[in-house]
Amino acid sequence: MYECAGVRQTFFMPGWCVENYPDMARSIVAGGHEIAAHGYLHEFAHGLSPEEERALLTRTLEAFERVVGVRPRGWRGPMYTFSDVTGELLAEHGFEYDSSLMGDDAPYLLDVGAGEIVELPVDVANDDGFQYMNVIDLDYISPQRAPARAMEVYRAEFAAMHAIGGLWVAVLHPFASARPSRAAELEKLVVELSERDDVWLAPLGEIAAHVREVQERSGSVRVERLPFYTGPLELP
Amino acid sequence: MYECAGVRQTFFMPGWCVENYPDMARSIVAGGHEIAAHGYLHEFAHGLSPEEERALLTRTLEAFERVVGVRPRGWRGPMYTFSDVTGELLAEHGFEYDSSLMGDDAPYLLDVGAGEIVELPVDVANDDGFQYMNVIDLDYISPQRAPARAMEVYRAEFAAMHAIGGLWVAVLHPFASARPSRAAELEKLVVELSERDDVWLAPLGEIAAHVREVQERSGSVRVERLPFYTGPLELP
Amino acid sequence: MYECAGVRQTFFMPGWCVENYPDMARSIVAGGHEIAAHGYLHEFAHGLSPEEERALLTRTLEAFERVVGVRPRGWRGPMYTFSDVTGELLAEHGFEYDSSLMGDDAPYLLDVGAGEIVELPVDVANDDGFQYMNVIDLDYISPQRAPARAMEVYRAEFAAMHAIGGLWVAVLHPFASARPSRAAELEKLVVELSERDDVWLAPLGEIAAHVREVQERSGSVRVERLPFYTGPLELP
Amino acid sequence: MYECAGVRQTFFMPGWCVENYPDMARSIVAGGHEIAAHGYLHEFAHGLSPEEERALLTRTLEAFERVVGVRPRGWRGPMYTFSDVTGELLAEHGFEYDSSLMGDDAPYLLDVGAGEIVELPVDVANDDGFQYMNVIDLDYISPQRAPARAMEVYRAEFAAMHAIGGLWVAVLHPFASARPSRAAELEKLVVELSERDDVWLAPLGEIAAHVREVQERSGSVRVERLPFYTGPLELP
Repeated sequence: MYECAGVRQTFFMPGWCVENYPDMARSIVAGGHEIAAHGYLHEFAHGLSPEEERALLTRTLEAFERVVGVRPRGWRGPMYTFSDVTGELLAEHGFEYDSSLMGDDAPYLLDVGAGEIVELPVDVANDDGFQYMNVIDLDYISPQRAPARAMEVYRAEFAAMHAIGGLWVAVLHPFASARPSRAAELEKLVVELSERDDVWLAPLGEIAAHVREVQERSGSVRVERLPFYTGPLELP
Repeated sequence: MYECAGVRQTFFMPGWCVENYPDMARSIVAGGHEIAAHGYLHEFAHGLSPEEERALLTRTLEAFERVVGVRPRGWRGPMYTFSDVTGELLAEHGFEYDSSLMGDDAPYLLDVGAGEIVELPVDVANDDGFQYMNVIDLDYISPQRAPARAMEVYRAEFAAMHAIGGLWVAVLHPFASARPSRAAELEKLVVELSERDDVWLAPLGEIAAHVREVQERSGSVRVERLPFYTGPLELP
Repeated sequence: MYECAGVRQTFFMPGWCVENYPDMARSIVAGGHEIAAHGYLHEFAHGLSPEEERALLTRTLEAFERVVGVRPRGWRGPMYTFSDVTGELLAEHGFEYDSSLMGDDAPYLLDVGAGEIVELPVDVANDDGFQYMNVIDLDYISPQRAPARAMEVYRAEFAAMHAIGGLWVAVLHPFASARPSRAAELEKLVVELSERDDVWLAPLGEIAAHVREVQERSGSVRVERLPFYTGPLELP
Repeated sequence: MYECAGVRQTFFMPGWCVENYPDMARSIVAGGHEIAAHGYLHEFAHGLSPEEERALLTRTLEAFERVVGVRPRGWRGPMYTFSDVTGELLAEHGFEYDSSLMGDDAPYLLDVGAGEIVELPVDVANDDGFQYMNVIDLDYISPQRAPARAMEVYRAEFAAMHAIGGLWVAVLHPFASARPSRAAELEKLVVELSERDDVWLAPLGEIAAHVREVQERSGSVRVERLPFYTGPLELP
C-alpha cells in the first residue's frame, strides 16, 4: 500500500476491488487509514437506473463489511458522478459524507431529502488524473508532463485554500501519483504541510465529523439542495 | 457575486440565468457593475433560424427588463457565435456594442445594414475557458494547469496590447477563474493595472461610448462590414 | 500586411485569397517579399483526383499571373499534403521548389519523375498552428499558451539547426502569430537573427536557387525519390 | 543510424522495416547495438487472433534471421499491446525478455505458462511520442513543446528511479527524438549518465541477462502472472 510521510489518508476503493484485492483493503485499515467507497466497478451514476444504483451500492457495502469488517462512512462517485438518487441512497445507507461535488471551497451540508450528508467538495484541479492520465482505451491521450508542473497546480490550490480557510482535497490515483517521480514530489509537499501548525491534515471522515460538530454547535454551515438536471435544458 | 479589487466590470449573463438567479442579476447592478446579455440559454447563433434567434433575443431582453429593470447595451454571443442576422438584430434592439468577434486589436464599428454597432474585439487567448475548462460532457478534457501559466498568457497579451494602444478584454467565467487559486492571481494583476495611470480599466459599455464619441469627433474609427460565410466554401 | 523587422519573407497564399484579396497579394510583392502558392482553397491533395489537383493548380497559377503578374516559384501543400502526383504537377508547371515535406534537416532534391524540384523541409515544431490554433469547427480546441512557450520551441529548433548547418523554416499564420503578444516575441528573435553574421535569413526562393547552384557546382545535394503510400499498408 | 554519445542501445524494429530497410537493420548490429523485435507492421496484439499473432511473429523472426542473421532476444509490443497469448508465444519462440508492460518500477519475471520471461517495465512518461507526436492521420494533434519540457519529465523520472534503485527505460522514436533540437538535449543527458559511476547504462538484453542471473543466484526477483482481461468487466 502506498504510504506517504506517515500521514493518515482516506482511500476510496470500489467494491469489486475490495472483493478481488482483500489484502489491499485490509492493509488500509491496518495502517490506520480510512477506507471509503467508490462505486462497485467504477460505474457512472447517471448511466444507471435507481434500482441498479441501489443494488450496486448494497453489493459494495456487503463487500466492505465481509472483507474489511468496516461500514464506510464516505463516498466518492466514480468520475465524480452523482445521480438524482445518489444523495438519498447514501443517506439511507448511513453514509456520513460524500466527496464528489464541486459546489464550494469549504465543506457544506447536502440536503438529500432523506436527511443531510456532509459534502467535502473537490475539484479537477487537484485530481492527478488530469495531470498524468494517458489511457488510449478511454480515448484520453495526454502529453506527459513533469511532476513539477502538477505540483505547481497543487501548491497554488493549497495556498489559496489555506488563505481563505477552505478545504484542499488532493485526489490521487495509484496509476498516476504512485509513480516514483511523482510520489517523491508529493511526499515533499505532505511533509511540509504536516510540519505546519496552521494546517489540519486528516482523513475525510474526521473532517466530516468536525463539520457536523460545528453545525450542531453553531448552525453556521451552509445547507444546499442540489439543483438537479437529468440532461441539457431545451430551448423554449 | 465575484468582486475583484473593487474594479467595475461587465458581467455577461444569459437570459435564463437572469430569470432563475434574479438576486445574482440584481446584485451585479447594485454593485455598480454593468450587466450585459449573453444569449438566452447559451445557444449558438449559427444553429438557429432567424426567427428563433429573434425570439430568444426578445425573451432575453424581457428577462433583463423584468428582473433587473435594465436594457442591456452590450452583447457577447455564446461561444462567440454570430450568425448572418445577429448584427442586424442587435442594432434593431438598440444594442450599442457587441463583443464577440476577433477582427482587430482595437475597437471598430460594425456596419450591420440596419446601422452601426461598436465592436469590442476579443480573443480566445484571453478566455479562461481555454486555460482551465474541463467538462467531460462537452468532450473537452484538459490537463489542468497552474494559474501562473494562464497569467503568463494574460500578461503577455495585456503588455502587447498596451504597447500598441489596443484593447485588452479578459473573458472570465465563474466556473474557471473564481476558483481561489486563480482569482488570487487575477486580483494581483487587476490591482497592478488599476494603480497605473496609463491604463483605462472600464466596463465595456463605457468603452463603447468612448468609441462612438471618437467617431463622431474625428471619424477615425474603422468601419467594417462582416464578410459572412454560412459554411465552408466549395471547391470550383 | 504583416512586416517583421524589415526582413524579406516568403508569403504562401492560396489562389482563392489572391482572387479575393488582390491588394494584399500585390502589397506582398510591392514590399519586396516573395509570394508563393498554397493550394487554391487550402484543399488537401490526398482528397483530390489527379484531374482535380491539376485543375486547381492551373486556376491558382492563373490567379497569381492575372492579379500579381507573378508566376510563383514555390509551393507549400495545404496542411503539408502531397499526393502521388503533386511532385510531377509542380515540376510540369515550372515550380522550382516545394516546402511541404519533412524528410531531412537540410534542403534536398526531390526526383519527381518529370524532373527535380528543390525540397525545403519543414516541421510541425516550427508551425505556429500547433502552438496557438483554436478552431472549434476543425475539432481542434487547444489550451492557450503564452508566446514564451512557443518561442522556447522555435529558439531550440533554430539553435539546433544552426549547430548542424541546417535549414530552419518558421511556418507562421496571420491568425496565430500576427496577434500582438506573439508578433512582439517573434520580432525580437528575427532582429537577433538578422544581426548575426553567421545566419542567412532569406525568402525560400533564394534558398532554393542556392541549393540548385550548389548541386550544379558540386553534385553534393541529396536526391530523394518519395516512397509513396496511398493508405495504410495491409498485414500479410 | 542515430548514435548517441557512443552509448550502446537497444533498437526495436518491426519485421517489415527489417525487410524493407535491410541496411538500417544491419548497421544497428554493426554498430555494436542490440536489435530487438517490435511486431511485424506495428500491429496491435489485441486486434489479432492467436493464429494471426503467431504467423506475424514467425514472419518477423524470419526477417531478422534472413536479413541480420540475428534471433532477437527482446520484444516490445507495438503501442505496448500484449494479448492473452503474447507471453506464451514469446516464451515458445525463445525470447528472453519483454519490455511492453508497466507493472513495476524494477524488472520482474513474467510467468507465461510455458515458462518465464524477464519483464523490463516501461512507462508512457518516458515515451517521446507523448511529448512530441503530431499525426493527424492518427487523430493525435498535439501542441508542440520544447525539448526542455520533455527533458524535465525524463530527468525527474530518472532521478526518482535512481533513488529507489529501479529501472529507467527511455522509449525514443526517430520521428520524434531524432529531430536535432531534441537529440541535442537527450545527448547531454546520456553523456551525464555515462559519466556517473552509480548508473548502469546498457542495452536491455544485458539487463535481462542480469535479472536472470540474480534470480538464479538469489531467487529474489518478483514473479508475476498477468491478470488478463479481454475487455471491460461487466456490471453484475
